[in-house]
Amino acid sequence: MMRTIAWDDERELVALIDQTLLPAEYRIVTCAKADTLIEAIQSLKVRGAPALGAAGAFGVVLACMNAPDDRSLRQMVNKLRAARPTAVNLAYGVDRAFQAALKGASRSERVAYALAEARQIAEEDVVVNRQIGEHGSALLEDGDVVLTHCNAGRLACVEWGTALGVVRTAVAQGKRIEVLACETRPLNQGSRLTAWELLQDGIPVTLITDSMSAAVMRQGIVDKVIVGADRVVRDGVFNKIGTYMHAVVAKAHAIPFYVAAPCSSFDLKRLSEEVRIEERAPEELIYCGTNQLAPRDVRVYNPAFDFTPFELIEAVITERGVIRPAELTER
Amino acid sequence: MMRTIAWDDERELVALIDQTLLPAEYRIVTCAKADTLIEAIQSLKVRGAPALGAAGAFGVVLACMNAPDDRSLRQMVNKLRAARPTAVNLAYGVDRAFQAALKGASRSERVAYALAEARQIAEEDVVVNRQIGEHGSALLEDGDVVLTHCNAGRLACVEWGTALGVVRTAVAQGKRIEVLACETRPLNQGSRLTAWELLQDGIPVTLITDSMSAAVMRQGIVDKVIVGADRVVRDGVFNKIGTYMHAVVAKAHAIPFYVAAPCSSFDLKRLSEEVRIEERAPEELIYCGTNQLAPRDVRVYNPAFDFTPFELIEAVITERGVIRPAELTER
Repeated sequence: MMRTIAWDDERELVALIDQTLLPAEYRIVTCAKADTLIEAIQSLKVRGAPALGAAGAFGVVLACMNAPDDRSLRQMVNKLRAARPTAVNLAYGVDRAFQAALKGASRSERVAYALAEARQIAEEDVVVNRQIGEHGSALLEDGDVVLTHCNAGRLACVEWGTALGVVRTAVAQGKRIEVLACETRPLNQGSRLTAWELLQDGIPVTLITDSMSAAVMRQGIVDKVIVGADRVVRDGVFNKIGTYMHAVVAKAHAIPFYVAAPCSSFDLKRLSEEVRIEERAPEELIYCGTNQLAPRDVRVYNPAFDFTPFELIEAVITERGVIRPAELTER
Repeated sequence: MMRTIAWDDERELVALIDQTLLPAEYRIVTCAKADTLIEAIQSLKVRGAPALGAAGAFGVVLACMNAPDDRSLRQMVNKLRAARPTAVNLAYGVDRAFQAALKGASRSERVAYALAEARQIAEEDVVVNRQIGEHGSALLEDGDVVLTHCNAGRLACVEWGTALGVVRTAVAQGKRIEVLACETRPLNQGSRLTAWELLQDGIPVTLITDSMSAAVMRQGIVDKVIVGADRVVRDGVFNKIGTYMHAVVAKAHAIPFYVAAPCSSFDLKRLSEEVRIEERAPEELIYCGTNQLAPRDVRVYNPAFDFTPFELIEAVITERGVIRPAELTER
């Protein structure tokens, strides 16, 4: 199966799995222009912090290929960088690829430098995910049931995954691990993506609504919670809306709550109050496909992310090891 | 607007608002036979513990009208009583109407006695809801934001509502109250019914996903949580799945958590472990209307209710007053 996002050498464009169509349809879409990729990012055809890092970098390649002049190039790079505000990886990928591009004197040199850097970012993501898997799998015991939220799997990364990468590595080591996937409203990345990719791999998965989290914990069937991160700041972690709820109920049931994230998601110079949480359209709650779920004129509050303070987090699983929050804040 | 469920004298049948079609369509459906009403109960055309009490009682009237003999009547009454297992009100309504019916010697007498009792149950529900509203509204202050889950409004009752009845009474007293309605997956009674009926009444309502509960509490914008109940037992409360999650996160944020329920939902002879929680079909999570949300073959855990122990509940608001859990367990 192809990577979540990749450069197509032959056609000189970005190819990605359209995640808005899963699980009903597996379709590869291509982006030959940065604007098309920005649309794909904003409509969540590609999403997940690590995948957005690669997307941002490949987007710079497209911008270098197509921008008529330096001013247009800088404008397009800024637009790409701001396509989604919360995950830090998008800006990280854009900045790295653009810095590389600027070493080139001609357009073709810039394209070549940006592409080499973007490929490097994608390869690093794969390696980093495997390392996260190695470090995190040591925390899982044979027979564990892991609750997860949203999709921090291979579809959120270039391949393998962060939270689900930990599960995959543990399974590859011969441990029997089961996953409880929370459906993750309003866009159902848990039911659409996590359930799909775990079924593809033959890893046992049970789908629940987000609100069942506390009830299954009370029943004693959850051993660990592992989620991804969109941004790790000095005082905690931004991740998909609902993450904080799971962290609070995990603490109340004395279940360890882990965040799996590459260091490229770290933004330790910042505090949570400095980060803007993206608010998305009311229609995400009012409709589900063509099905009307709520009155058209109802007021909706729809933040895409929430913040979980470090007090509720046992450790952050990174490519450099399992880091306790106290160690992070000492840095 | 008509009551949620009512007897149609002219046509001698039960009329009810089809709650599966809201908010897109407001349609009254009729049930001339007990079997049709059982189907309406199981498909959630009528739902909500107090409304199910009235539905059960009216169902006995239909059974008395149509059963060819005593054996068939008893069979139908038992089938009606077991149509949904968790809310105690259904059995309560069925039993009261059937006991009344048994005083009659002929079919027509039985019908008349059952109908009188069913009407009495419906009228009592209206009165009881108003009393719950009076007692509960004393707990609400001008400017309060109340978070609620599922629909414990007039659509869950004959009219007025339990949890939303408290809000309605407070608003009628001139208090400015805003409601945060959790959408209530998987069947979205919050978005479909609570948002709809509050908008109809002009009460300010904002729709959120269930998983946003903890995040909005952390932001300090929730003053109280009020939910309904399907069954109040010796050690706590059964209510719509997700209720326990809200109770845990409310406790973590020191926000009072109230249950509003008529005494007909009380079953204080029983402990939680004796109550069967209804599990519903996987399709409720796999599809949303015709929209496929998850792989067709994914395993799903879909309990319709969860249990919240009294430790997490500030008080139960009943027609007899606001009762602290300690007082209940002393009885």
